[in-house]
Amino acid sequence: MRSIYNGHHGAHAASKEFFRGRLVDAFEVPARADYVLKALQASGLGEILPPVDHGRAPLERVHAPAYLRFIEGAYAEWLATGGEGEAFPAVWPVRSLRSDVEPKSFAARMGLYSMDSGSPLTAGTWEAAYWGAQATLTGLNLLLKDAERSAYVLTRPPGHHAGADFFGGYCFINNAAVAAQAARDAGVERVAILDVDYHHGNGTQAIFYERADVFYASIHGDPQTEFPFFLGHADERGAGAGMGFNANFPLPAGSSNELWFEAFEKALDQLNAYAPGLLIVSLGVDTYGGDPISHFKLDRPEFRRMGQALRSMQLPTLFVQEGGYATEAIGHNVVAVLQGFEDLS
Amino acid sequence: MRSIYNGHHGAHAASKEFFRGRLVDAFEVPARADYVLKALQASGLGEILPPVDHGRAPLERVHAPAYLRFIEGAYAEWLATGGEGEAFPAVWPVRSLRSDVEPKSFAARMGLYSMDSGSPLTAGTWEAAYWGAQATLTGLNLLLKDAERSAYVLTRPPGHHAGADFFGGYCFINNAAVAAQAARDAGVERVAILDVDYHHGNGTQAIFYERADVFYASIHGDPQTEFPFFLGHADERGAGAGMGFNANFPLPAGSSNELWFEAFEKALDQLNAYAPGLLIVSLGVDTYGGDPISHFKLDRPEFRRMGQALRSMQLPTLFVQEGGYATEAIGHNVVAVLQGFEDLS
Repeated sequence: MRSIYNGHHGAHAASKEFFRGRLVDAFEVPARADYVLKALQASGLGEILPPVDHGRAPLERVHAPAYLRFIEGAYAEWLATGGEGEAFPAVWPVRSLRSDVEPKSFAARMGLYSMDSGSPLTAGTWEAAYWGAQATLTGLNLLLKDAERSAYVLTRPPGHHAGADFFGGYCFINNAAVAAQAARDAGVERVAILDVDYHHGNGTQAIFYERADVFYASIHGDPQTEFPFFLGHADERGAGAGMGFNANFPLPAGSSNELWFEAFEKALDQLNAYAPGLLIVSLGVDTYGGDPISHFKLDRPEFRRMGQALRSMQLPTLFVQEGGYATEAIGHNVVAVLQGFEDLS
Repeated sequence: MRSIYNGHHGAHAASKEFFRGRLVDAFEVPARADYVLKALQASGLGEILPPVDHGRAPLERVHAPAYLRFIEGAYAEWLATGGEGEAFPAVWPVRSLRSDVEPKSFAARMGLYSMDSGSPLTAGTWEAAYWGAQATLTGLNLLLKDAERSAYVLTRPPGHHAGADFFGGYCFINNAAVAAQAARDAGVERVAILDVDYHHGNGTQAIFYERADVFYASIHGDPQTEFPFFLGHADERGAGAGMGFNANFPLPAGSSNELWFEAFEKALDQLNAYAPGLLIVSLGVDTYGGDPISHFKLDRPEFRRMGQALRSMQLPTLFVQEGGYATEAIGHNVVAVLQGFEDLS
């Protein structure tokens, strides 16, 4: 399996974030990808390629152009308004407030285009996120043009919390959603997204919620207690034409590996029944027992088993890196999934 | 004119707040009300009375009971989850996220029930806010039961940004809205609320937006650049049965006093045409030229003129304290409005 490595990821490097009401050291740090790169290089899994630039158009198929322009220019605006260090939003258009008028105020637009204060915006956020999407599109092309069976995209910041027009949960551009849409635009009739990150991928779900051509399934910590809190319940099955093409498997924090695999197998069953032409895996490894902000218990053997099960779907499969915050362990956990998929020991 | 003084206001005392992305010293501090009390005592305007407890029911006529329960217990929960100092929310249910499920997580409920990170929640927030609403109801009774012509309610935190089920903009319980609803419930057929605070009272507007029995009019800094950013535009005229019973006069930051009074007179015309039985004035004096976070230019003579114009409406009038952050000047500015109303020199 070949990998695409977003060498620009380090441009997005925040020192602090707000986590459940407290200002703490950032969890989503460049070292995460550095450790994965090392493990990948040592694994002998295959070539590691740089991203090819596909331009802005595929990003605009999923994200509002005004939102992308904002993210691109936000840090310069923050500096221009006297800001220093990382930029955080502070006011949000919740119930009864309007999202249909873009205010002139920079502080207001930070809130209009975000869902939390846990996603610091830095000088290099746009560069890192832009090239992350390009790396994902490059990985997709290995499947669509080169007919490879699988590819892995090593990037950060992650993507699955980013909505059509907002950032949050460390995510700015929704890489998995960009790839799913690009696959559709390239003629793949049905695309499946399987999100195995500890956190529900609210952005991905919302982007395809009313569509039948992209099936989103997710196994994650129950939003009653786990981020993103406001989406990811089992009763969210899609809407309109998309009814029945969304499947959530929320599990209580602390769930056993047995429970996790039970939900995982159900998700695979639903995706198999959908008969997709392509599988995109939102590969968070914060399901790891040692993750500092998550509460499942997977370890190396379970990650390998996950990869093996994904292989059994016999689909062109694009792995896209999402979360995982036990920095030094992430690489080994990711490699375990990919080796399981390749059936390597 | 008699006043009601919320002697519990000091229970809500925050040291820090987030202001346009930066953690700064709190603007909404106990000294604000202390200075007004001094100026009021020196003014000879009239007796200063304590609030009478009207219980929780009138608050629940305007706010969701679950929201009130949350605010009442929030600080204890914050401490129980290991929190220290002031509690701030960090994640919000914006577009595509759900507000219809109350998560178990405290951090999530902080976000569910708020619109910004600028409104620190402290040990005494509920006490101060609860008694603020009681003070407002006590002031209302001076008009309704004692047939007095006017009353002034000295309280903080302010109220007009608080929605039916969220806090924000320093506001937790919407005093003006509670009073308007209580007046309706006491048989006043049409209630007018005139909001002269520098900031649009998004909470008050939203609470009565679809109703014809409470007319909300506001003169304020343009939400394009001024808080609350996401409401307060001129095209918001009400909805459903409330169409035509909401009037916003957003003015650019830096507007002249001439412009301000032009808008003010238009607002008075509309309220006069409505023929209300009672007027509630959301009295923010952050329209003052020296206010640290606002950008209008009113001064003592203009505040007096404002009071005189309000007197000319010949309505039972309840003044409720909202914003004003030039701490030492607030008292003189408030007294100027009230003296103008009383036609005292």
